[in-house]
Amino acid sequence: MPISGFPEWLPPQRIIEQQVLDKIRSTFELYGYSSLETRAVEPLDTLLSKGETSKEVYLLRRLQEDDPSAKQDDQLGLHFDLTVPFARFVTENNGKLQFPFKRYQIQKVWRGERPQEGRYREFLQADIDVVNRDTLPFHFDTEMPLVIGDVFKSLPIPDATILVNNRKVCEGFYRGLGLEDTAQVLRTVDKLDKIGPEKVAAALVETAGATDAQAAACLALAEISSTDGSFADRVRALGVSDPLLDEGLGELLQVVETAAEHAPGLVRAELKIARGLDYYTGTVYETMLQGYERFGSITSGGRYDNLASVGNTRFPGVGISIGVSRLLGLLFGHDALAVSRSVPTCVVIALAAEDKRAESERIASALRRRGIATEVAPTAAKFGKQIQYADRRGIPFVWFPGEPDTVKDIRSGEQVEADAATWQPPAVDLHPNVSAR
Amino acid sequence: MPISGFPEWLPPQRIIEQQVLDKIRSTFELYGYSSLETRAVEPLDTLLSKGETSKEVYLLRRLQEDDPSAKQDDQLGLHFDLTVPFARFVTENNGKLQFPFKRYQIQKVWRGERPQEGRYREFLQADIDVVNRDTLPFHFDTEMPLVIGDVFKSLPIPDATILVNNRKVCEGFYRGLGLEDTAQVLRTVDKLDKIGPEKVAAALVETAGATDAQAAACLALAEISSTDGSFADRVRALGVSDPLLDEGLGELLQVVETAAEHAPGLVRAELKIARGLDYYTGTVYETMLQGYERFGSITSGGRYDNLASVGNTRFPGVGISIGVSRLLGLLFGHDALAVSRSVPTCVVIALAAEDKRAESERIASALRRRGIATEVAPTAAKFGKQIQYADRRGIPFVWFPGEPDTVKDIRSGEQVEADAATWQPPAVDLHPNVSAR
Repeated sequence: MPISGFPEWLPPQRIIEQQVLDKIRSTFELYGYSSLETRAVEPLDTLLSKGETSKEVYLLRRLQEDDPSAKQDDQLGLHFDLTVPFARFVTENNGKLQFPFKRYQIQKVWRGERPQEGRYREFLQADIDVVNRDTLPFHFDTEMPLVIGDVFKSLPIPDATILVNNRKVCEGFYRGLGLEDTAQVLRTVDKLDKIGPEKVAAALVETAGATDAQAAACLALAEISSTDGSFADRVRALGVSDPLLDEGLGELLQVVETAAEHAPGLVRAELKIARGLDYYTGTVYETMLQGYERFGSITSGGRYDNLASVGNTRFPGVGISIGVSRLLGLLFGHDALAVSRSVPTCVVIALAAEDKRAESERIASALRRRGIATEVAPTAAKFGKQIQYADRRGIPFVWFPGEPDTVKDIRSGEQVEADAATWQPPAVDLHPNVSAR
Repeated sequence: MPISGFPEWLPPQRIIEQQVLDKIRSTFELYGYSSLETRAVEPLDTLLSKGETSKEVYLLRRLQEDDPSAKQDDQLGLHFDLTVPFARFVTENNGKLQFPFKRYQIQKVWRGERPQEGRYREFLQADIDVVNRDTLPFHFDTEMPLVIGDVFKSLPIPDATILVNNRKVCEGFYRGLGLEDTAQVLRTVDKLDKIGPEKVAAALVETAGATDAQAAACLALAEISSTDGSFADRVRALGVSDPLLDEGLGELLQVVETAAEHAPGLVRAELKIARGLDYYTGTVYETMLQGYERFGSITSGGRYDNLASVGNTRFPGVGISIGVSRLLGLLFGHDALAVSRSVPTCVVIALAAEDKRAESERIASALRRRGIATEVAPTAAKFGKQIQYADRRGIPFVWFPGEPDTVKDIRSGEQVEADAATWQPPAVDLHPNVSAR
């Protein structure tokens, strides 16, 4: 029976997922990201080293616990994201990697949470990250939205807006205001969409030692948003000055302006977003899908300067993650995507009698050798039944062996002479077609 | 640190793995198999329903066990193969699937075993199966070796021989001999390669109630092997007769003869193989890789008529599984595969100064739009350093912006004028090339 939080797609949905993954992968590779897969498990101390996540972890235990070799496994848990395993992989293999190291990783992750709409316990993520030894040039922060923008442009989905902020802007602004516990201010402002400005203001006064004026300034900052560089003027108009604030504004401007040149409207500076996880140190990203904003962000990411280190050597990084299961779950739930057939098959070879199977198989082999996905009819039923076999799966062509062979487009009914050595279906029919519904 | 039994590949190995998986997938699809992914976990009773595997299962447990919702998770385990989850998926969704249902499934599986050479605790399998409602035509048994043969032919690996047997041959033969506990005889003969003929004969006498003559006949059957139909004559020459034996010989002949027509030498009837798992009822498959026979089989599969049912409706199936991690682990361990570069990147755009980055990015975008994987140099270092950046990764081309632009093949040193709107690398350089070493 289905298990809550562990989604499974039916064959037509899986074809859509595969084509989405193919587009994601090819876009990542066009930017030079190398594929990586890490094991599903990490030692518990690795998983817990980044804090805030202890409640989400699934640990493994062996069914036969009396086995002495089982002890080690007791300290293994399933990874809950791909960033922590990647940081572990980089430090473990740093002598064998070329830096800067650009990698993508498309894998399932697991979180032992109570499932809710659009939240899963097993789900697929597609991540890109760049890490370097010692320092990482800032321009990689500007590349992330371009890659994600190209991915989304390649998919038959609604337009997406990438929201960007920079923790240095917030932290510098709070500090410039005179607030010391900037992490607490950030965590509180991060609740803006959930609890509203009044409760945030009250909480800032209560838990972060803010005056009413300071709390109001924090909220004024969080309200700022623009798809061009104008956000920076609006921040400066608030009259707060701090060197970290200036650095953050400069970085955020670079991200917004690079994206505006690449794809106008793709990126919006949105000064209220913070991302919950502790390890981000600069740029942070989210993505809203037009018409699906109420379901929240479908990407998350940012710059992390302190996630990985070996001795005195740091490996700063920046990355972004597409929530593939989340995205597809939303679109499937709203019946927003269609696929032209439920199987890869393009042609069914009809079978006049069971003792003619070898002949039909030879035709199928000839078509397959030229890249045309082909099945032979499963039984020598009446031709009407064999056509129905194709029709029910959305397979466009049925081939009739004979002298000469003929092939029928069962959508139009058109039937023409054909030679298995040369016949080619229209390019559009070679593979299933995914489209917006 | 590495965890024993949980392999991870470095980027060049991962490129090889991806290309191998691409070939596997496209071959599966050419035969009309649809992709499916099932969740990583199954209820424990589903996992244990097929017997013999209880010691291999990893169960999940939530880190915070006091959470009341954690109870259900305690009964979830990671799947140890893809056949049991597939059978569960088919019965669960049988009303939504088209039968016969041909599916492939490429996923990780986990076994909580003590690791040993070539055995992993997390590994990747690539399975195809066909299931039907009520009965499944036998010709699908003959298709499995053709698909696997086409997969292996498409890969830069040594020749493979698919070994085939049929449990009906063994069971019918043992029964015709007068032995009643045919399952026990099968299990004993299955140990032939491990313990040798004398110990098998002794065990047959001891545990299966065989006389010396019966034990000798069982061993004589197990010795028979041929790449053509001659095995059937040799079996008949042993003078045992039984209707099930005849049925099995007829089926095995079909598999061997169909394969001999498709690819001579690909399949060998090998009457000693049995496959350990209980659920096979007819054809069974293994595959030996030339030069790697001592490491055992790299595929496993067979016909299972009784694995899945809903009420009175049975869903018989036949399938075969490629042990991808096992295959690649062996070939990597023997340094048998090479790849031309460690990144997808085909071209690096050189950067004369950091303030020229936007110009280099525009060239990169133009190349990417035409499917050419391109990176811009990470820093405006001396050109020698930028060429080194490409060289260390095996990237073949470095592009120099200018008037006009030029592109240099850093292997030959040849440098020519080029226009980002039209330049095309040789097809062989577009993607990394995997080859036998």
